Amino acid sequence: MHKETLKVSGMSCGHCVSAIEGSVGELDGVKLVKVKLDDGSVDVEFDSSKVSLAQIKETIDEEGYDIAD
Amino acid sequence: MHKETLKVSGMSCGHCVSAIEGSVGELDGVKLVKVKLDDGSVDVEFDSSKVSLAQIKETIDEEGYDIAD
Repeated sequence: MHKETLKVSGMSCGHCVSAIEGSVGELDGVKLVKVKLDDGSVDVEFDSSKVSLAQIKETIDEEGYDIAD
Repeated sequence: MHKETLKVSGMSCGHCVSAIEGSVGELDGVKLVKVKLDDGSVDVEFDSSKVSLAQIKETIDEEGYDIAD
């Protein structure tokens, strides 16, 4: 199980939290996803044999948010 | 047909626009509803014989936003 904290910009409200936690949480292999609006960050815990960090970032990107490298 | 511009705080993203335009737009008698994020305002055009300004404000409030008096 891997843990990562991603810096994500543009998350501003409860709808954004739901959009990201919902979409990332649906990925097979993601155990936990937690958006922190105050930090502009997303904590994610996942099984890297089932899902890659790149796929998680892609999912967040598809919801319309920018991820810092 | 009446036109009003409401000052609404807390609207921050496209999800907020959809939430307000969707819920207010569903009210019987509302002809037009347009959220302007930059202004923090909501333009609404409605038939006051079918829906009251109070009902429109109540609907926005129920979506979780504050309306200035």
